[in-house]
Amino acid sequence: MALNKQTILAQLLAHRSVRQFKKKPLTTQQVETLVEAAQHASTSTFSQQYSIISVTDPKVLTEIAEITGHSWLLNSGHYFVMVADQFRNFQIAKRNNADPFILHTTDKFLAAVFDAAIATENIMIAAESMGLGATIMGSILNDSNRMIQLLSLPELTFPLLGIAIGYPDDEPELKPRLPQAMMHFNNQYHLTPEMPNLVDYDQLLAEYYQSRSTHRRAETFSHHIISELSRDRRVRSDLLHNIKAQGFLVD
Amino acid sequence: MALNKQTILAQLLAHRSVRQFKKKPLTTQQVETLVEAAQHASTSTFSQQYSIISVTDPKVLTEIAEITGHSWLLNSGHYFVMVADQFRNFQIAKRNNADPFILHTTDKFLAAVFDAAIATENIMIAAESMGLGATIMGSILNDSNRMIQLLSLPELTFPLLGIAIGYPDDEPELKPRLPQAMMHFNNQYHLTPEMPNLVDYDQLLAEYYQSRSTHRRAETFSHHIISELSRDRRVRSDLLHNIKAQGFLVD
Repeated sequence: MALNKQTILAQLLAHRSVRQFKKKPLTTQQVETLVEAAQHASTSTFSQQYSIISVTDPKVLTEIAEITGHSWLLNSGHYFVMVADQFRNFQIAKRNNADPFILHTTDKFLAAVFDAAIATENIMIAAESMGLGATIMGSILNDSNRMIQLLSLPELTFPLLGIAIGYPDDEPELKPRLPQAMMHFNNQYHLTPEMPNLVDYDQLLAEYYQSRSTHRRAETFSHHIISELSRDRRVRSDLLHNIKAQGFLVD
Repeated sequence: MALNKQTILAQLLAHRSVRQFKKKPLTTQQVETLVEAAQHASTSTFSQQYSIISVTDPKVLTEIAEITGHSWLLNSGHYFVMVADQFRNFQIAKRNNADPFILHTTDKFLAAVFDAAIATENIMIAAESMGLGATIMGSILNDSNRMIQLLSLPELTFPLLGIAIGYPDDEPELKPRLPQAMMHFNNQYHLTPEMPNLVDYDQLLAEYYQSRSTHRRAETFSHHIISELSRDRRVRSDLLHNIKAQGFLVD
């Protein structure tokens, strides 16, 4: 147990997103192991409300590189798309003449998102334990409609996250996280608007960005958040519409 | 690395939800370690869009037991609530006179849900590596409005998942998961409506439910899903409204 604790905690605390890969594809067995690890994560009401799509077709990968703006994914050893999925359970409902209404609700959409995101993290951890590196990519949502078409996603499914995995070809530094006092509270949420710890954290992150080996820049956490907010509002403005168009979020 | 792989994969594949705990609270240090593990998970655009609330007040725990219908959580050694959080970044926007519009979007709500769910899984894995057991509880959403009041959650935050953690006082059997052919696809989603593997999986799960040491019942996976669908439609029917009332999902 002590060994487990030491090994596993050390890995969790050492996580970095890896975006540069050696040109070496994962084996079928490695991919199956990663999917198996995903499957053993907790799933809401044991309903297993997600699916995984392995994208191996270079044409589709090229399209995903365009959608996400991240052509480095083309060098990954394997690419997964994690999909919220109530379509499978909808088929089970149909076979048994059960009313599928519940599957369309906001509640079941959220449950599917939880399932997919939790399974995503198991893939990350399994991959890192196998000496692989990976990055979770929310940027597939830049064009969710195109992703739905590319992957032939039926009603009651929705693409959520990409995962690019491979043999690491760089060693990014560890990015300092928020002080716990700013994100962990007792019994009640109580972030003071002044956020006295933010100045120190801004400074800490600025030092990280200045001292790291590549992509050095002058940026605090506050700068980073503000630059996120300045994004073009039209990007992903179709998201709510597209989720509803797939049959989710009925009132 | 071989040791890592063996240790970590073995733990991931051995996950069970634990709902019976010895009466022994976690130490402050254990709680901090779990939060630290959560923090080191990937976070969308490094925006750290979630917060964690440790619920230690017995009155609040009793209310959560009522909301979830799971009084066994009162015996856990620690209870976390994972919260989607754009309020902190909203404060950063305000201090810097930046337009916070983006924080209200469906996209940023989803990003916060991803962050919180991914961090949740890191807590689960860290806890298990420390010899603890845990269950993720979506049932706090049975009354999200009451949860918001109980935890004093401000605008642009939303409670998503509870986590009951403690020293295990039972050893649940491992529940068989769907065959990979039913949930892992290549390049395109292609679940055939006939689902030829479902009969075997239904049988496998029925055998599991019949043979396990407690809570034996005659139930296939199909039965299980159908019984989920028969839930009262009014349960959680306020969810979309409550998410919007917290300032999320603007079109």
